[in-house]
Amino acid sequence: MKVGVLSGGQLGQMLALAGHPIGIDVSCYDTEPDVSASHGGFVVTGKWTDTGKVREWARGCDVITYEWENVPVELVADLATFKPVRPDPKALAAAQDRWHEKKLLSELEISLAPYRLCRTPDELNQAITEIGPNVIVKTRIGGYDGKGQVVIKDGEGIDNAVAMLNENGLIVEQLLPFDFEASIIAARSTSGGVVVYPTTLNVHRDGILRASIANTGLSRHQADEASRYIRAILERLNYVGVIALELFSVGGRLLANEIAPRVHNSGHWTIEGSETSQFENHLRAICGLPLGSTAALRPAAMINIIGSSPNVMGILSIDGASLHTYQKTPRPGRKLGHVTVTAPSDKMLAERIEAVQRCLSE
Amino acid sequence: MKVGVLSGGQLGQMLALAGHPIGIDVSCYDTEPDVSASHGGFVVTGKWTDTGKVREWARGCDVITYEWENVPVELVADLATFKPVRPDPKALAAAQDRWHEKKLLSELEISLAPYRLCRTPDELNQAITEIGPNVIVKTRIGGYDGKGQVVIKDGEGIDNAVAMLNENGLIVEQLLPFDFEASIIAARSTSGGVVVYPTTLNVHRDGILRASIANTGLSRHQADEASRYIRAILERLNYVGVIALELFSVGGRLLANEIAPRVHNSGHWTIEGSETSQFENHLRAICGLPLGSTAALRPAAMINIIGSSPNVMGILSIDGASLHTYQKTPRPGRKLGHVTVTAPSDKMLAERIEAVQRCLSE
Repeated sequence: MKVGVLSGGQLGQMLALAGHPIGIDVSCYDTEPDVSASHGGFVVTGKWTDTGKVREWARGCDVITYEWENVPVELVADLATFKPVRPDPKALAAAQDRWHEKKLLSELEISLAPYRLCRTPDELNQAITEIGPNVIVKTRIGGYDGKGQVVIKDGEGIDNAVAMLNENGLIVEQLLPFDFEASIIAARSTSGGVVVYPTTLNVHRDGILRASIANTGLSRHQADEASRYIRAILERLNYVGVIALELFSVGGRLLANEIAPRVHNSGHWTIEGSETSQFENHLRAICGLPLGSTAALRPAAMINIIGSSPNVMGILSIDGASLHTYQKTPRPGRKLGHVTVTAPSDKMLAERIEAVQRCLSE
Repeated sequence: MKVGVLSGGQLGQMLALAGHPIGIDVSCYDTEPDVSASHGGFVVTGKWTDTGKVREWARGCDVITYEWENVPVELVADLATFKPVRPDPKALAAAQDRWHEKKLLSELEISLAPYRLCRTPDELNQAITEIGPNVIVKTRIGGYDGKGQVVIKDGEGIDNAVAMLNENGLIVEQLLPFDFEASIIAARSTSGGVVVYPTTLNVHRDGILRASIANTGLSRHQADEASRYIRAILERLNYVGVIALELFSVGGRLLANEIAPRVHNSGHWTIEGSETSQFENHLRAICGLPLGSTAALRPAAMINIIGSSPNVMGILSIDGASLHTYQKTPRPGRKLGHVTVTAPSDKMLAERIEAVQRCLSE
């Protein structure tokens, strides 16, 4: 089997590495030549708009998938006319448009922070009156890692939000005093089977994920609720592949934040920490193979390497730490790699996480 | 760092995959184009005798290693004149010549089955009289996976041994009624640090390794003895990289069988079952990086896929089973892949091993 992946960042790289042992070849298509997956020779370079080139590349693959939700949905839909595209382009479309995404979640009776769609300064003011005074304003389409978002607190920051207004509108959400952030990842096969990974507690700073700790954070009841949420989404979208759902825990309540229709940063711990990694399960799902067990082997966490190069010698000296470098040039706020940490006990895991954090400069 | 690996079979493939996340590029040089490592694009093809080509390839690497002990030692020694070669060519030379290997082990006071070097039929008869009547006769140089070996029992098979005689001589070893076979794997860094993996119990059939079970077989006392053996070998050879030592347990005694100066089939379980795989530790060692912890995560085993294609869908359906295919054409006795199995308990491990074995046809 040959899998074509639209975009070839670190997620494409990790998909390629996961495919190799199980006999699945991965080829990524990216607009840039020097992306993470290119270091294993997994990348074909071309423009999204070069339809001839994309189609030719896709014809050489057995199934097409994507590892970035901002791939043009028209392109993906075009490829779906002659090749299986998994997940279906409509899942990509739903995730690209925050308004459609919120409506989908609401229809499935998944709890959300109150939200409004605003196209004018008046609608923005109205929304703040109704669900404010503290809100987060997000572009309806596009944006990731905290980009395309502004916070309004007691009226402060409204000018920035007005400046972001465009014909698509903005999504204004109530800014919740959440206790912590979490996520859940699941995979659904072509035959409708679903496997769900243990939830993670996620720590963000400046809108960028810094760390995920598996099997931590959510109560048993909340984790069951999260599982119900993600299963409902998978069924509704007739989804095939791995999906992630970001969540907030607010005073014991569980609210959905957003969907990522792909393998997810908060699931990188599964490479070393689970019986089957999210990358292998995504490939298994889209290739029509049986899904693998998502059981955790032992306490595990993931720490992102952001912005500047870490102390590599230090990281390699920590027991139970596995370095993953994405071979990118350092730049503030850029994800350059991650470290998975596993340990025989929660206490040792915490010590190892601290040791890794001492090796990071940002 | 770019590591050059002489030969590009499945061991080269797994070295390449282990290097990628830690930023080490691997390039294998092999005489055949269609070897396992070629499926990731990791192979340069050329003859061993094409010195110009091998040298040019080696000049593009930072350090050279090997994944097969039958690489011509003169070639390796030549490359060592202008590039670091790790392990040192003298380790390769020692492992290629069973007579030198036995003498090395004897000098280190490592227990061995009684053995003789025989160059003539008379010497062969004399050896059988002294250490027989049951012996195993092996070519002094070359041979692997049971090839180049014959067994003589009560005089039966001596003609086959005589037919194997050549100027190098043959090694005649007492055939021991061993209780089981085992192995130990260790790595030594450029600064002399040593890490040792848990020993494995190994099951062979027709001279080919079928399965390895980690942390099983040897008693605590024997495992300590095995660790002493391998540390002595590493020190004596001023070795850098991963080494394996095959062992026999005979009535509670521990005897050495042979050295493999490379990553070893009985260590494949470390990819999923240990805090650092043997492949990553080999790369770390030869690149002058700190060695990683060799602790086992939980009960683990490895089952080889030999000769004919397995039931892939069946294997993928077993919890805790990880498939590794080498992308080779099936042929009787050929190693086509392996399955790592890990489990939360020894009992579940045994069940999962049985489930995997039901998916194998040979």
